[in-house]
Amino acid sequence: MSILVVGSVAFDTVFTPSGEGRDLLGGSATHFSVAASYFTPVRLVAVVGDDFGEEHLAVLREHRVDLEGLRRIRGGMTFRWSGKYADNLDDRETLETQLNVFADFDPVLPPEWATTPVVFLANIDPDLQSRVLEQTSRPVLVAADTMNYWISSKREELRRTLAGVGLFFINDSEIRQFTGRFNLVQAAEAVREMGPDVVVVKRGEHGVLVFAGEDVFALPAYPLRRVVDPTGAGDAFAGGFLGYVGSRLDHWPPDWRKAAVVGSVLASFQVESFSLDRIRRLTLPEIRERYEEFGKLTRFGELE
Amino acid sequence: MSILVVGSVAFDTVFTPSGEGRDLLGGSATHFSVAASYFTPVRLVAVVGDDFGEEHLAVLREHRVDLEGLRRIRGGMTFRWSGKYADNLDDRETLETQLNVFADFDPVLPPEWATTPVVFLANIDPDLQSRVLEQTSRPVLVAADTMNYWISSKREELRRTLAGVGLFFINDSEIRQFTGRFNLVQAAEAVREMGPDVVVVKRGEHGVLVFAGEDVFALPAYPLRRVVDPTGAGDAFAGGFLGYVGSRLDHWPPDWRKAAVVGSVLASFQVESFSLDRIRRLTLPEIRERYEEFGKLTRFGELE
Repeated sequence: MSILVVGSVAFDTVFTPSGEGRDLLGGSATHFSVAASYFTPVRLVAVVGDDFGEEHLAVLREHRVDLEGLRRIRGGMTFRWSGKYADNLDDRETLETQLNVFADFDPVLPPEWATTPVVFLANIDPDLQSRVLEQTSRPVLVAADTMNYWISSKREELRRTLAGVGLFFINDSEIRQFTGRFNLVQAAEAVREMGPDVVVVKRGEHGVLVFAGEDVFALPAYPLRRVVDPTGAGDAFAGGFLGYVGSRLDHWPPDWRKAAVVGSVLASFQVESFSLDRIRRLTLPEIRERYEEFGKLTRFGELE
Repeated sequence: MSILVVGSVAFDTVFTPSGEGRDLLGGSATHFSVAASYFTPVRLVAVVGDDFGEEHLAVLREHRVDLEGLRRIRGGMTFRWSGKYADNLDDRETLETQLNVFADFDPVLPPEWATTPVVFLANIDPDLQSRVLEQTSRPVLVAADTMNYWISSKREELRRTLAGVGLFFINDSEIRQFTGRFNLVQAAEAVREMGPDVVVVKRGEHGVLVFAGEDVFALPAYPLRRVVDPTGAGDAFAGGFLGYVGSRLDHWPPDWRKAAVVGSVLASFQVESFSLDRIRRLTLPEIRERYEEFGKLTRFGELE
């Protein structure tokens, strides 16, 4: 089984309380692909420029990410983002965005990828997300992410995309903005009425809430002693989550709870370093060990 | 076994997105006492004025709270607080504080209460907290709470109090303010160096973190469809937590995880109504049922 991801591949310059990193390999599809690759083969649809070198491709290749859908624009520059995190690591300010080749991104799927069973529409223009969906042929699961920018500027387009989405990842502040509901239970209900059966509310350092049918699952984040860089945590989360789901398609519906824990494991590793330094060097025993630590962290006995 | 609580008994006027309530029975010691009473008999040390009537005493009496330490000041008025919650129910603005008889509160323990095994110093002036401790005789557990006001204005006094405290309840924003550390693992370590073995970080709608020795426990909050009034949630949490601990003193150390779940159960009921309307009418089966719901909410299986 495979997962198809459409999203950004980028160079990030980030300033965090732990330090700074310049022109680091990043982008939603990059973090997602590497995280998911520990469980399921990944097919990447994205665009880069001439400045995207062999050393960057190597990070994806070493995780067996299929790059047939990665388009390189001759004479173009790769998408660049720069941001600065506040001391709380939660608030961040965008210092600069250079869309570059991403400005004209028109995702085209290699024809044989149309039947990929799991499709992840990372945080891109909802119109592009819809255009990707039109190129797919009855995937088992379509998952999507978004951001505050699209909620403000393309609300109706996002709603249209969501009609074809089965699982929606969204931040707590974004779901409140999107639905106008502060209560997350009510906000998730409102989103589920737009299409997605499963709503996964990402709460950063506070963990995650999964709404799937009548089932509600809450998982705290892993309390790390040191967070180096939160960039890419949400994408690594989605990658771990959907990578796990993709590896279990013979059991439908998959165990969304376990998927959320795997996602949280990958996110917790993601924030321990800049760029993909930590998650590109993971081992399955390390992933499994932290999964078990999540169990120890959250478990409690029955009331006498 | 009994628990001694020293704190405020008050009348609250609150404005929340769900409505408003005027001159409602409240105060840290009130919420705490009723919540704890479901597990352990409570001894209350507090002060009220002439305006504190039989109907208010009845709420405490119906939970068998021992009122020998409740002093009534003739010609005085009970402490009054008024506040307004933002739509997010997290930020709140204090509209008015009338200390009234609380301004000269000098807690005096009935002598036979000195040996009460569990002592809870609710959020009052750290100097008063210390004065209460001086009147106790080797309790099994001293727990304390505080607030941002004392952290700013009486930091050193608070540190002195903490040297005699075994368990400290504190909000996430307050522990950051108190320790200057944004990372909660590091902040809890800093507090534990001041005395408390157990640090319980209350995160409101995001749940709770318990640091006890090498053990870390994280519990999300119960995702309610409707929160009416967050006032008193932290005190009801402490009440459920310590009420459970007080009922299990024959097993030392108590199961801090179970205590945190019981506290979260009481807090979840607390916020479902104004004042003590919900928590004063609880039954043990209701408490037990929600405890089990916390289990269902957080449980997940092993990774295949």
